[in-house]
Amino acid sequence: MNLRKRLKLYVITDRRLRDEVETVKEALEGGATSIQLRIKKAPTKEMVEVGKKIRKITEEYGALYFVNDRLDVALAVNADGVHVGQEDMPVEIVKEIAPNLIVGVSASNLKEAIEAEKGGADYIGAGSVFPTKTKEDAKYLGLDGLKAVVENVSIPVVAIGGINHENVREVLKLGVDGIAVISAIVGAKDVREATKRMKEIIEEYIK
Amino acid sequence: MNLRKRLKLYVITDRRLRDEVETVKEALEGGATSIQLRIKKAPTKEMVEVGKKIRKITEEYGALYFVNDRLDVALAVNADGVHVGQEDMPVEIVKEIAPNLIVGVSASNLKEAIEAEKGGADYIGAGSVFPTKTKEDAKYLGLDGLKAVVENVSIPVVAIGGINHENVREVLKLGVDGIAVISAIVGAKDVREATKRMKEIIEEYIK
Repeated sequence: MNLRKRLKLYVITDRRLRDEVETVKEALEGGATSIQLRIKKAPTKEMVEVGKKIRKITEEYGALYFVNDRLDVALAVNADGVHVGQEDMPVEIVKEIAPNLIVGVSASNLKEAIEAEKGGADYIGAGSVFPTKTKEDAKYLGLDGLKAVVENVSIPVVAIGGINHENVREVLKLGVDGIAVISAIVGAKDVREATKRMKEIIEEYIK
Repeated sequence: MNLRKRLKLYVITDRRLRDEVETVKEALEGGATSIQLRIKKAPTKEMVEVGKKIRKITEEYGALYFVNDRLDVALAVNADGVHVGQEDMPVEIVKEIAPNLIVGVSASNLKEAIEAEKGGADYIGAGSVFPTKTKEDAKYLGLDGLKAVVENVSIPVVAIGGINHENVREVLKLGVDGIAVISAIVGAKDVREATKRMKEIIEEYIK
């Protein structure tokens, strides 16, 4: 299955909301197609330990597995890719070190999205589409900004930031390739059920 | 020149005390033989930017260049090696990902030192030899503990932790291969001069 189709429902961990391994199991049972391990403040050893567990589960479910920011951890746990923000390692350097990894790049405006594509990014994480509290440093892109990104890059675009079951259709209408979610799934009472409901909505738009 | 001889005076950066690039320039002018870039809290992009500048300077002086903890940054800046603590990436995994890098491992007791050597470490950073405030989480090894490490591992041993111009002779007498310093050099008024004086003392013991 090609990358574009595997980014459909992209769930990002957040230990402030729920244990990573638990999150990933339940999200995969609910139908998540991609998982991103995002740990900001932990010793590298712990990241690698948690990361290896998630490698095992994502493999069982045939889901793509990305590590946020940390190329060293991505390599250590044999992830499928790494996702870098504008303050992380430049995509060109990531591709030089690890040409076989899928590299996603966060973009909060069209300029960043176009530069990421030129730099060799395999997909764009475009956002924040809506205001969000999960990533306090996230810049606002908005629906109009997202539309511009979708229309002007040729690599897959995954929308991120404040997307939930209520507003996701507005995002899907713009023709994105995938929806990335933290709070609406990781912060839900029932992660499996929240993932399943989100997947059903996404599949109304993306076959 | 072999690794053992190049670890003689090993200076570790600390941005709380002084800018990294400035530190490295002055320490190399003073005769440092190895440099370790140690940045704990900064975006990866910034680590890579600073790290590349230091690669350039260390190359000019023919000094060895290590990056603390972050294998991704070490690879991105083309460092000679990476230095990992007990809570960082296990040495076995580092060696798998980057077999050509020199890998140093911190050990705060003999057991950790022996395990590091078995795991493939190229040198041991043994400490803390004296109490120190620079690394608040550093465990105390002491002079006796250091002696045991020197006598029981065959890879080079660099002593670290609270070493200054006054107490360094006590450490050198134990037969270590190198002295690692933060505060006594990076926190000195004149980094170049502090390095030069330390180098002179070290060379009384290590030719």
